[in-house]
Amino acid sequence: MVSKPAPDATRRSEKSRRAIYAAALSLVAEVGYPKTTVEGIAARAGVGKQTIYRWWSSKADVLLEAFLDLAEQTAREAGHDTAGYEAARQGTAGPGTPGDETAADQTAGIPDTGDLAADLKAVLRATVDELLDPRFDAPARALTAEGVVNEQLGRVFVSRLLEPQLQLYVARLRSAQEAGQVRRDVDPRIALELFVSPLAQRWLQHTGPITYDYTDTLVDYALYGLAPR
Amino acid sequence: MVSKPAPDATRRSEKSRRAIYAAALSLVAEVGYPKTTVEGIAARAGVGKQTIYRWWSSKADVLLEAFLDLAEQTAREAGHDTAGYEAARQGTAGPGTPGDETAADQTAGIPDTGDLAADLKAVLRATVDELLDPRFDAPARALTAEGVVNEQLGRVFVSRLLEPQLQLYVARLRSAQEAGQVRRDVDPRIALELFVSPLAQRWLQHTGPITYDYTDTLVDYALYGLAPR
Repeated sequence: MVSKPAPDATRRSEKSRRAIYAAALSLVAEVGYPKTTVEGIAARAGVGKQTIYRWWSSKADVLLEAFLDLAEQTAREAGHDTAGYEAARQGTAGPGTPGDETAADQTAGIPDTGDLAADLKAVLRATVDELLDPRFDAPARALTAEGVVNEQLGRVFVSRLLEPQLQLYVARLRSAQEAGQVRRDVDPRIALELFVSPLAQRWLQHTGPITYDYTDTLVDYALYGLAPR
Repeated sequence: MVSKPAPDATRRSEKSRRAIYAAALSLVAEVGYPKTTVEGIAARAGVGKQTIYRWWSSKADVLLEAFLDLAEQTAREAGHDTAGYEAARQGTAGPGTPGDETAADQTAGIPDTGDLAADLKAVLRATVDELLDPRFDAPARALTAEGVVNEQLGRVFVSRLLEPQLQLYVARLRSAQEAGQVRRDVDPRIALELFVSPLAQRWLQHTGPITYDYTDTLVDYALYGLAPR
């Protein structure tokens, strides 16, 4: 049997963990990924470097979990009724929700009210809110920028943060296919990019304003096509 | 009257200009935008710093023109018959074609054979080729990554390089609207993002393979919609 830590020790650990996450996110937002170090995170969090290495093996690991935690927090704040939307929100960008701690939200997926357009619009509106939230925007940009030039890091963050969220759209589109609302011959993994990627590009490259109207329009165009019916 | 430079001087200038472009592109690909300096470009090009400052006011200016020149070159290699495609190719990514020197290509725009799907597929296939070309890929990634975290620089490059290319799609979609192939109530500036942005995101974030099949599929989905007809 492994003895459980005393409540005080657990509280202290939890407090350190939160301080480390906050330090990691603010530091990467300020100085970028290459200049972020475990030493710098430790100093800002007011813990010893060894405390970090006890729990994580690298700065990439700390940042990965810090983003998972940030997304979980935002989801909690947004309330239970939108848990599904929140779990799926931000499938557009670099880092985001899922992971062990948010397994419940992930299983919940994107709500299925039977109205595909309405469900997608609600998730994308929640994503717009998150992209415009400075707590998310600055660290997510720093990490995404690094992933653009550092393919290995980019692939790790995509597979652990972004792709699990995109899979929520895949699941919702599959259920829409079963309901006859999406053509059977459509590949859901490509189809989701028609509304997710434009939002991601506007956010990342500053190519246009990000609004609810905009994401609603993307969903309508994607579902019903540009050609006359 | 301004006296023209002697032919030899013009040749020397042209040679320096080409050396400076090549140095700027290779340097930014290797060390990233922040560490690229006018001094570094000059040293690699084998010219004096003052030669660069005589023609450009900053490293951003040099890089901007180096990208315009790179795109022009690629277009020339691809031959005259595809000039329009080449002018529009790479509307997906950071830097690209247009500018004063390529005004002719730009006016040409995306060919209009009357078959919108075929025309868009041809342009996007040419874009796939460019994104997979290491001459373009490495410097474009470095610059795009910087634009993600440096909004001011990002906006300059978008407005001078990316947006003029996106406007070629706007023009082609407008002509398709006049021909009754695209719904009148569709906003072309948003519509183009349904096939341009997914390719850009796959390229930038390594979220999936980039192939002709993929871009063909994007065009089909965008034009005819995901919902059954």
